Amino acid sequence: MSFVSSAVGYQVHMYLVISYDIPDDKRRSKIHKVLKSYGQWMQLSVFECNLSETQYAKLRSRLSKLIKPEQDSIRFYFLCSCCQGKVERIGGEVLRDETIFFV
Amino acid sequence: MSFVSSAVGYQVHMYLVISYDIPDDKRRSKIHKVLKSYGQWMQLSVFECNLSETQYAKLRSRLSKLIKPEQDSIRFYFLCSCCQGKVERIGGEVLRDETIFFV
Repeated sequence: MSFVSSAVGYQVHMYLVISYDIPDDKRRSKIHKVLKSYGQWMQLSVFECNLSETQYAKLRSRLSKLIKPEQDSIRFYFLCSCCQGKVERIGGEVLRDETIFFV
Repeated sequence: MSFVSSAVGYQVHMYLVISYDIPDDKRRSKIHKVLKSYGQWMQLSVFECNLSETQYAKLRSRLSKLIKPEQDSIRFYFLCSCCQGKVERIGGEVLRDETIFFV
């Protein structure tokens, strides 16, 4: 966990990796749009977000309303600051949000 | 980190979330086959694996040889036992490895 100051005092922020499987193009596009207002697009179906508890609750609620649970899946991995510092990768650059996402 | 006993003593095992973006079907299929021999398929492009350091080094080396770094991307998130216990999800069931993966 990292502690980030805000205008109203100190808020605990959580670092999340959010991955999703949404077979339907339209729903996937909506999920993507919601997520990109909360964090950084890392891979086609992976975002990384630094959120307060309130933001996380709101995001989860919005996503819950958009998905079809029997077809779709969204996973939330909470990374402590230690785990956050250990992320590794092979290849790849951070994706640009300007790109239209239909794949 | 969790400590798991092995036949030769004690080995540190690491819990990893591995996500990938591989635009090419053939390469993606190969990457998927390698990963499914190391862990659990959670989403179309996400595996979770419990690996020793040796297994991780071998897996990473195999994947590095398969990908085209300018087109492909593989991310490795190391989860401590605390973060591992905090994973949340909306919808979705664990995917079956019997399914042929071409999407």
